[in-house]
Amino acid sequence: MTTYTDLNTSERILLGPGPSMVHPRVLRLMTTPLVGHLDPQFLTVMDEVQELLRFVFQTKNEFTLPISGTGTAGMEAALCNFIQPGDEVLIGVIGYFGERLCNIAERYGAIVRRVDKSWGENFSPEEIEAELKKKPAKLVGLVHAETSTGALQPMDEIGAIVHRYGGLLVLDCVTSLGGLPVKIDEWDVDIAYSGSQKCLSCPPGLAPITISERAREVMHERKTPVANWYLDLSLLDNYWGEERTYHHTAPITMIYALREGLRLVYEEGLEARFARHQRHAEILWEGLEGMDLTMHVPVEYRLPTLSTPRIPEGVDDLAIRKQLLNEYNIEIAGGFGKLAGKVWRIGLMGYSSRVENVTLLLAALEELLG
Amino acid sequence: MTTYTDLNTSERILLGPGPSMVHPRVLRLMTTPLVGHLDPQFLTVMDEVQELLRFVFQTKNEFTLPISGTGTAGMEAALCNFIQPGDEVLIGVIGYFGERLCNIAERYGAIVRRVDKSWGENFSPEEIEAELKKKPAKLVGLVHAETSTGALQPMDEIGAIVHRYGGLLVLDCVTSLGGLPVKIDEWDVDIAYSGSQKCLSCPPGLAPITISERAREVMHERKTPVANWYLDLSLLDNYWGEERTYHHTAPITMIYALREGLRLVYEEGLEARFARHQRHAEILWEGLEGMDLTMHVPVEYRLPTLSTPRIPEGVDDLAIRKQLLNEYNIEIAGGFGKLAGKVWRIGLMGYSSRVENVTLLLAALEELLG
Repeated sequence: MTTYTDLNTSERILLGPGPSMVHPRVLRLMTTPLVGHLDPQFLTVMDEVQELLRFVFQTKNEFTLPISGTGTAGMEAALCNFIQPGDEVLIGVIGYFGERLCNIAERYGAIVRRVDKSWGENFSPEEIEAELKKKPAKLVGLVHAETSTGALQPMDEIGAIVHRYGGLLVLDCVTSLGGLPVKIDEWDVDIAYSGSQKCLSCPPGLAPITISERAREVMHERKTPVANWYLDLSLLDNYWGEERTYHHTAPITMIYALREGLRLVYEEGLEARFARHQRHAEILWEGLEGMDLTMHVPVEYRLPTLSTPRIPEGVDDLAIRKQLLNEYNIEIAGGFGKLAGKVWRIGLMGYSSRVENVTLLLAALEELLG
Repeated sequence: MTTYTDLNTSERILLGPGPSMVHPRVLRLMTTPLVGHLDPQFLTVMDEVQELLRFVFQTKNEFTLPISGTGTAGMEAALCNFIQPGDEVLIGVIGYFGERLCNIAERYGAIVRRVDKSWGENFSPEEIEAELKKKPAKLVGLVHAETSTGALQPMDEIGAIVHRYGGLLVLDCVTSLGGLPVKIDEWDVDIAYSGSQKCLSCPPGLAPITISERAREVMHERKTPVANWYLDLSLLDNYWGEERTYHHTAPITMIYALREGLRLVYEEGLEARFARHQRHAEILWEGLEGMDLTMHVPVEYRLPTLSTPRIPEGVDDLAIRKQLLNEYNIEIAGGFGKLAGKVWRIGLMGYSSRVENVTLLLAALEELLG
């Protein structure tokens, strides 16, 4: 008979693209015994989580809630509820997650037009407008913080352009929400989603999503039900709304965790939190450049939450990462897709973004590369 | 500025249809700091969870894993991967979750034929055979333990019948897995799913699923990709299989929790665990009948995990449940759908199935109904 021992994992310093380290207050809170998912006390928790999510998304959108799945479920919900077969969808692809937006949109019968740029670049508002001028699209999908490249997509003017051409704007904020400014209302984004396990310092398993009233109307007006029951946002609207119509059993402990993670953001304050992420990223960049590593993304649109130094010639990518993990308990990640073998991906998100982590990583890399 | 206090929920005794009480060992384990989802240590955890799930499902099915969503996601995955538009699907409806099987199957373009019986009954093998004789079906969906009625669906002969007519058998085991025998291989079930929050004593958020080789072939042979990326089991097969192809970030803490919940099942042993559930249910039934309450489901196919006493004439359903919750911190549930206002639903699942809980509930009900 097999014996299953106590779980006996190592204490890792998680500096990869996610999950980041969970804040100890969040971890401790997860020992809270559960109340039922229809308990009046839990309904209060749901309301608070919605308020706090509006705070971090910087939005007044009533439809703002965590989906009971990981960030990928958030991405799928952000697409499938707004696409009917034959709809024109424009996706900006600057990395792996743009590719994934295309793949998922196609599954729901969208006619996907993709615009590609090199992995590590981003789009100017003019480039988006030029594409829409050629042909409008019902949905325009962009990635705010591309986890596969470390590039930021500036959002100042794009919302207005997309709306001028009659479209809805979908934005992937998985690696930005809680780590750098995400201004849903100011940018006039219609649908945005994220994950719990990055800058919000919670375990993976929830996908915050927010939907503008404009998008909500499109969603409720669709003629055929979306070919996805679990991620049908009109059903979730009734579950999280006043009706509280049963849809599924909310992942109560994860919701508790998210409440605590969001409360930490609220206590720290958005500006202070963003400044902390920026400060520690700059220390990292300076240290890496001091070791003659080149950053893949120019500083003007480099993510503070995910840095991608190029791997120097002659350095064994996997060997270094294995040594970091096995000798120092530090996790960083390799490149992905077109950047495989070319960059490392170093995340400084949420509770992982601390000066002691940056200092240790730099010292360890110096020893290994030195 | 709003203040968000510490989470301050009451200590509830959860005797509703789920979530049940989470075992304290599982809760404590959730404070474990995370390793990355691609960390070799996490891959070992994934393997162990798969082994333990095979143990509790009583199967050798290689494809046995937890889906990163609640039981509803499990239900959807069990249907959508095997249905192509126009496929004939036969669903046995003896309660709310049979209805839901129909709804979800329809979303994927199935031609759904439903067979209804009263809420609280079940199907004989002859009844299923008679339906298939009229017209075969690609998929036959049944609910092993109907959470809305408290009725058990015996499974001894049905698998053989479904296969004789060339179909695949889907079984909802949400309220049975870990609380009463679920014999996937012996019964020759092709697709079965459950939830983490019932007899497995974990928080809600994961849906264990197991797939026979026969069903796995059907899944891999489909011509069009399933209109659901997150629940595409062929992608999950590669993620949990040897390739470890990235699909989504596994909900690490929930997987830790499930490992501990399953380890508790393994330590207790299946037979002892089922006997415990049965024993405490019988104490409950005897107590309720001693108060002149009638059980809605005959003892021959009454679930030990979910009991449905009829609410006596003149008793205020909601008032009693509110008193139980507010005065005794006990949660039970009301009826659902066709049984709304007619029965209570009392769950004794996993860690909730303890003699002290039954004794307290009976004493409290005696005082309130007095």
